[in-house]
Amino acid sequence: MTLLDRTRAAITDVDSEAAAATQRQLDNKTKPRRSLGRLEDLACQIAGIQRNPKPPLPTKAVVVMAGDHGVAREGVSAYPPEVTWQMLLNFSRGGAAINVLARQAGARLVVVDMGVNGPAEVIPGVLSCRVAPGTRNFVEGPAMTTAQACAALDRGIAIADELAGMGIDLIGIGEMGIGNTTAATALLAAFSDCPVEEITGRGTGVDDGALVRKIAAIKKALEVNPPAGKSPEEVLASLGGFEIAGLAGVVLGAAARKIPVVLDGFIASAAALVAARLAPLVAKYVIASHRSVEAGHKIVLAALGTKPLFELEMRLGEGTGAALAMHMVEAALRVLHEMATFDSAGVTDTGK
Amino acid sequence: MTLLDRTRAAITDVDSEAAAATQRQLDNKTKPRRSLGRLEDLACQIAGIQRNPKPPLPTKAVVVMAGDHGVAREGVSAYPPEVTWQMLLNFSRGGAAINVLARQAGARLVVVDMGVNGPAEVIPGVLSCRVAPGTRNFVEGPAMTTAQACAALDRGIAIADELAGMGIDLIGIGEMGIGNTTAATALLAAFSDCPVEEITGRGTGVDDGALVRKIAAIKKALEVNPPAGKSPEEVLASLGGFEIAGLAGVVLGAAARKIPVVLDGFIASAAALVAARLAPLVAKYVIASHRSVEAGHKIVLAALGTKPLFELEMRLGEGTGAALAMHMVEAALRVLHEMATFDSAGVTDTGK
Repeated sequence: MTLLDRTRAAITDVDSEAAAATQRQLDNKTKPRRSLGRLEDLACQIAGIQRNPKPPLPTKAVVVMAGDHGVAREGVSAYPPEVTWQMLLNFSRGGAAINVLARQAGARLVVVDMGVNGPAEVIPGVLSCRVAPGTRNFVEGPAMTTAQACAALDRGIAIADELAGMGIDLIGIGEMGIGNTTAATALLAAFSDCPVEEITGRGTGVDDGALVRKIAAIKKALEVNPPAGKSPEEVLASLGGFEIAGLAGVVLGAAARKIPVVLDGFIASAAALVAARLAPLVAKYVIASHRSVEAGHKIVLAALGTKPLFELEMRLGEGTGAALAMHMVEAALRVLHEMATFDSAGVTDTGK
Repeated sequence: MTLLDRTRAAITDVDSEAAAATQRQLDNKTKPRRSLGRLEDLACQIAGIQRNPKPPLPTKAVVVMAGDHGVAREGVSAYPPEVTWQMLLNFSRGGAAINVLARQAGARLVVVDMGVNGPAEVIPGVLSCRVAPGTRNFVEGPAMTTAQACAALDRGIAIADELAGMGIDLIGIGEMGIGNTTAATALLAAFSDCPVEEITGRGTGVDDGALVRKIAAIKKALEVNPPAGKSPEEVLASLGGFEIAGLAGVVLGAAARKIPVVLDGFIASAAALVAARLAPLVAKYVIASHRSVEAGHKIVLAALGTKPLFELEMRLGEGTGAALAMHMVEAALRVLHEMATFDSAGVTDTGK
């Protein structure tokens, strides 16, 4: 039995009894019933995931995975491919947005080179899990071999497992990779049957010309790598990327260890959709942070059956939205632990 | 010249040059231009308010004001009036939702009795500014005298001034008062000409019968206290409440001291609308946190020309949404201070 198979088998349904017990505790807190809205939902969801009606305050990590994409050669991004490697260095030195926001959220930041096309040197503070120096250009054939895609999934699973072993019980996921909205959109098209034009956005901010090239590249990729009849692993291999596969692995590994996963933007959410195609129950383990301006994001979130906590017109990636959402997850659990009950505070409870 | 007049005169326009200088700094950070969306807007807004292109990380306070409402006798709330006093005690002991969320946000919590109908004893940790033990029932005449409303405004101004003197540079506002969505809705009806039915919600969760009574009470109040031709202070006096007047004063006082104010839900936002009717420029000093489920909230926010950062189906009040939003405000300023620039990080800048 492969690691992937064992992990899928270990993912079981969440505990609705624990979630209901959490709601009963919240109903005794000094506030009108359900008046904290989605914060209450978050507390109940986490209770169900952890099978614990009173989950502890979260110990957090944000996993950022980076990879390069052969399709970047089609001129689909506003930035040249070398920016992926440059940003890895920036992460390692603490200067990127996710460094700032993970620090603020009190989250450990785990940066992983899943497949960057850069020097072989190891960057201090960056976990080197490079499957290959970037994917192949999927307008000409599969982006990865199925073996490569499975290797990337396995590395993601192993990282989630290691974080679980360190006591991490809330994982956010984010990514970096020039060209990766193109790959994520191709995956979404394959998994959703949505017209490519409707789900293709401007990524980091491409102009009209690049948007046309991006749509053409995705359509070509779907022709060259027709998804019909393929397994999710094979679709992932032909249209995905190393960081997307790695993050799908993190989602699977986290769910197998009963850890909720806070999604970031479009690409991280597409990785979660890959995971959900491999193991449908993982959809119950994800928390959508924000909805980005990327056109396909709302389609991915709907396919996962989740809705975002906020919309801040963000489109940066890196896990930035996930880090922001962690404040709300923590708030939900703090309310559960720290608020007085009607009885203990001597406040009249009308049951409303 | 009264304190109110001096305060209004001290409120000047924000500095669009400082805001533009902040945007230029953000444009040099290692991320696509504007990719942090509304976080970037927040940083620029605060720069404009403080007349400082690089505002310091915020030193925060949440001001929660409490008051009782004579109209509660009309059966417009799901809770009995004594809950206002009981919740003051709960705030003082740290057991309410806002205690938990202000602590999480690193915000000083300032709880003020503006006009609660409770024992005269001073509660430790509660600032006693009681103008009167609750307003009169505004279906029978004005809720307050204009002198009382102005006294409440003055106390709010003085509190903002004191917080400014202590180095607070970000103020959130929240409230507690059984019956106060009724008062806030009456004020909104007076200031907006919206039909009462369209802007009246269920507050803490009233049933259909109480909702009918609530609408009837507001309509009666508008008949008994016709707003036409009245000054904003007079409208506030006839239809408002002590905590609403006090919070309007906090907004005015904060704006006069160049301090941004994070609004909470419907009632706190209605207080800001009162302040904006007294001094229109204050609208540029407010940050809307969440949009609550209360029907009138979106109308108030539109009247203030602002839009919320998130919608979490909350309807608790107390400043809970404001405390949550402070994490986002802090994130915006941390990005400004802590992120690397394209130059310093050696990342290729394409100007996109």
